[in-house]
Amino acid sequence: MASHPLLSAISEFSASRNAMYGKDMLLTWEKSDDELRAILAAAALLREMYAQNISTRVFDSGLAVSNFRDNSTRTRFSFASATNLLGLTVQDLDEGKSQIAHGETVRETAIMMSFLTQVIGIRDDIYLGAGNAYMRQVAAAVDEGFREGTLMQRPTIVNLQCDIDHPTQTMADLAYLKQYFGGLDQLKGKKIAMTWAYSPSYGKPLSVPQGVIGLMTRFGMNVALAYPEGYNLIPETLDIARQNATRSGGSFEIANSMEAAFADADIVYPKSWAPYSVMEERTQLLSAKDYDSLKALEQRCLQNNAKFTNWECTEALMSRTKGGNALYMHCLPADITDVSCKQGEVSKSVFEKARIDTYKEASWKPFVIAAMIFLSKFEQPGSVLEELVKRSPKRVL
Amino acid sequence: MASHPLLSAISEFSASRNAMYGKDMLLTWEKSDDELRAILAAAALLREMYAQNISTRVFDSGLAVSNFRDNSTRTRFSFASATNLLGLTVQDLDEGKSQIAHGETVRETAIMMSFLTQVIGIRDDIYLGAGNAYMRQVAAAVDEGFREGTLMQRPTIVNLQCDIDHPTQTMADLAYLKQYFGGLDQLKGKKIAMTWAYSPSYGKPLSVPQGVIGLMTRFGMNVALAYPEGYNLIPETLDIARQNATRSGGSFEIANSMEAAFADADIVYPKSWAPYSVMEERTQLLSAKDYDSLKALEQRCLQNNAKFTNWECTEALMSRTKGGNALYMHCLPADITDVSCKQGEVSKSVFEKARIDTYKEASWKPFVIAAMIFLSKFEQPGSVLEELVKRSPKRVL
Amino acid sequence: MASHPLLSAISEFSASRNAMYGKDMLLTWEKSDDELRAILAAAALLREMYAQNISTRVFDSGLAVSNFRDNSTRTRFSFASATNLLGLTVQDLDEGKSQIAHGETVRETAIMMSFLTQVIGIRDDIYLGAGNAYMRQVAAAVDEGFREGTLMQRPTIVNLQCDIDHPTQTMADLAYLKQYFGGLDQLKGKKIAMTWAYSPSYGKPLSVPQGVIGLMTRFGMNVALAYPEGYNLIPETLDIARQNATRSGGSFEIANSMEAAFADADIVYPKSWAPYSVMEERTQLLSAKDYDSLKALEQRCLQNNAKFTNWECTEALMSRTKGGNALYMHCLPADITDVSCKQGEVSKSVFEKARIDTYKEASWKPFVIAAMIFLSKFEQPGSVLEELVKRSPKRVL
Repeated sequence: MASHPLLSAISEFSASRNAMYGKDMLLTWEKSDDELRAILAAAALLREMYAQNISTRVFDSGLAVSNFRDNSTRTRFSFASATNLLGLTVQDLDEGKSQIAHGETVRETAIMMSFLTQVIGIRDDIYLGAGNAYMRQVAAAVDEGFREGTLMQRPTIVNLQCDIDHPTQTMADLAYLKQYFGGLDQLKGKKIAMTWAYSPSYGKPLSVPQGVIGLMTRFGMNVALAYPEGYNLIPETLDIARQNATRSGGSFEIANSMEAAFADADIVYPKSWAPYSVMEERTQLLSAKDYDSLKALEQRCLQNNAKFTNWECTEALMSRTKGGNALYMHCLPADITDVSCKQGEVSKSVFEKARIDTYKEASWKPFVIAAMIFLSKFEQPGSVLEELVKRSPKRVL
Repeated sequence: MASHPLLSAISEFSASRNAMYGKDMLLTWEKSDDELRAILAAAALLREMYAQNISTRVFDSGLAVSNFRDNSTRTRFSFASATNLLGLTVQDLDEGKSQIAHGETVRETAIMMSFLTQVIGIRDDIYLGAGNAYMRQVAAAVDEGFREGTLMQRPTIVNLQCDIDHPTQTMADLAYLKQYFGGLDQLKGKKIAMTWAYSPSYGKPLSVPQGVIGLMTRFGMNVALAYPEGYNLIPETLDIARQNATRSGGSFEIANSMEAAFADADIVYPKSWAPYSVMEERTQLLSAKDYDSLKALEQRCLQNNAKFTNWECTEALMSRTKGGNALYMHCLPADITDVSCKQGEVSKSVFEKARIDTYKEASWKPFVIAAMIFLSKFEQPGSVLEELVKRSPKRVL
Repeated sequence: MASHPLLSAISEFSASRNAMYGKDMLLTWEKSDDELRAILAAAALLREMYAQNISTRVFDSGLAVSNFRDNSTRTRFSFASATNLLGLTVQDLDEGKSQIAHGETVRETAIMMSFLTQVIGIRDDIYLGAGNAYMRQVAAAVDEGFREGTLMQRPTIVNLQCDIDHPTQTMADLAYLKQYFGGLDQLKGKKIAMTWAYSPSYGKPLSVPQGVIGLMTRFGMNVALAYPEGYNLIPETLDIARQNATRSGGSFEIANSMEAAFADADIVYPKSWAPYSVMEERTQLLSAKDYDSLKALEQRCLQNNAKFTNWECTEALMSRTKGGNALYMHCLPADITDVSCKQGEVSKSVFEKARIDTYKEASWKPFVIAAMIFLSKFEQPGSVLEELVKRSPKRVL
């Protein structure tokens, strides 16, 4: 058999040490540019091997624990798909309702569900200050378990959305940008508008806008963030965006309006999120189990949202973007005016034009998650992929 | 190794083009006689290979999405077994309570759960006019997704019971009839009585009787349908039964009583279902979320049912069948008098004699579902089975 | 390749007939000493093969049904891990709330979920007199199904905790004792204190203490049971413990206090359980659905428990054990004073010292369950393991 065309694409993995081996995926800004590039490259390779009917089942058995402390349909399917693609079986940890976790229980439960577990995917995005911290508690527990010989392998923790970041979403977004514009280097100098948008819903996490500004500033893009007064993000994430922009030769600015942010943008990402102060108050009220005040808070928040119904991604706004033709992105589901609600984040016609694009954006998520797991589990990922391509076991007979 | 005895049985698949490739299984009357024969043949082969410990794991990875919009234990297990037999992993879409689905959501959700999905099994049997329509919405969504390049494969939709038909049940029934009577051709001229029977329960779907009369008229049987006044079926399904009977050389009649339907029957299928008008009213009330009227409707319906408690499959009735010895069929669970309820569809002694038969009837369901999926996913199913039999990978070591 | 070091360890399986083939695991005292030794040996081998990255996927497809009629997180993961390790896929039977099962339903449901099922794991520990009986009903149903040809294989029933015994827990405990003390023969003459301990919780099953005294008396240990007045166990389990002790050359005594039981103990197992009479009354009230009386019973029971808050495993008590250094065991989660509750089964400092030990104890459970299933499914388990070790298929690529 002649050399398989995929082998040269794989060669980049073989060159250097895999710094992600044995590491968790908790925040994109804890990863080097090279590591992020490796995730994108691995995701693209796994996808291409899928397309060529080459099985990437690197595990003959093993569990992938999912722990959704907030509702999820889509990420649940992405995680199930990704782990299945690698040969793992999902076992869901059903804790009942989300609650701020206590140290002892977290430590013990983490061990009890990990004896034959390769990866733990966690969504915990409700409590500001608690979600990412919980993931680190789990990580510390399995660290101890592996060190003390309780666990025969250390499961990788993958952040499936927390209070701070949503790395599987933003890396899927970046993978699509790379595909759409024809390479990561093509993103240099492109303008992306990450803006708030009105939605009749309440309490959406800050993790997507924070994750987007923290990641998209890494590759030389000009990132414009815009939101109404009171809808600011966790201050540290702004600092990270600023530092990244400086380092990458891009820029980061906070605009006052959608109009300003959209001006000449190559990419727009209009999306609702909750006011920062509401998220803080909500965390306190949830901890105190003060459900009456929570209901009152929700009412107040929805009324406040309603002042900004004009933050909608319309045709008029889109016409202000580069060539009137910016790429519209969304993590989905979007609140679409006259479709999923009376008044929402995006007009029906704008969304309909962008719909297939948003689906393609989403299609990267299983492969990005699979890549993150794959790179954390194999010290020599290039050799493993090479072996698979050479053998080319069939995914479907 | 000498030629495997199964290879000649497989050869019939190799002869002709597989018209089911890439197609959904939504209604049996959308399939040709040859297609239905191929499903039965594939189910029998998969079962025989199972018995001979030959693995039929044709997928090395891939998801099988199940979407149960009504309760199910048995079909859930059949679908899980069938997909597992082929190498797929079930991922359940848990939408919460059943509701009439809206186009946008259906379309998007269908894509989001399908990126690495080979099959979607759906049960949606509560709303008259909506269940099968929902499946077609999902089918249209994945059609678009595949066409637009959002999906790398098009998942097959399998109807796990809708408002109109229950093809996995009736094909399992037919597979058992084929086994019981020694071949499909042996069914020609046999009489099957599909009758209503009393049950203290409320709102059972019409899909089984409709599916039975729509399928059993295909193979030259004489089908007698009987029900009390008001328990009529969707008119179009009667037309289909009539046309099928004419074409196949069988007959289709509507009798006035169990007695008439059972007379000289070779097979009886006594089973409760809801009155047609109640199903219609219920659909409207559910759409309107008028729960008070729904409760009143349930009461009215149960009172109406109670007029027909004499529609019970008793020894006396069974004695009217061919040789007093007709095959009793049921999709299970049956409402058995003095066992699962005070007064039900069938007497204790009739059911006890037939019990093992009904279990064997049910045992075909996993293999029928597996056959439906298999035939929709492989253009050359004969070659695939041939390869498997020649290699004979062990199912259990 | 030279002979693999594991092959000699495997040879003990090859020597004799496997009496567990085709048998269920319902109570440890229904198994011979040799059978229990074989389970421990198989568990250790499966664990070692796991450590050496040898896949033990002996099933290419097949379901493992889990039926949790009481809550469980840990056993759920153990069962999922064990079955996954062998190549089976868990399908959960979700019956809704636990209820005393009725014969017809049990029989039919058992068949319906078993067509392609290799093992059924059941937890049913709430009703005294009903849990183990339910498992035997399921066993009888699949016996009939296999005999009548309804099922192509007979699923093995594994007791994942009942009203009488908790064999997967106690066998994991025994596996850890074997590891900790360096061999089963090292347990001869060792003293183990199985004692009640205070917990603010209500209605914990009796199965762990009953299982521990029924099992640990098998291998020549001196078993001391201690509990406050009213917390006695099912009388038959005491008889079994006495007979076992006599036969194995160990002893079985009932002490009046933790102090007495702990004196010179090599191992302590302090754990809460409900008073026997409360369990009996509760069973009656649950059957009668008398929820008001159940609430009153719970209050009474908690008040009664509170008389025995001094039954706590403290440093002072531990200092009475052999060398002040007994192995502390627990099935987890323990109620730890000042950690998981104000006053519980064990002091914070005692538990913290023992914590890693209890995790290692728990780590045996997946392998013990896998061993039980493995031995029930293969007539020649030694040959199967030998074949696997010789081929050494990789668990992780």
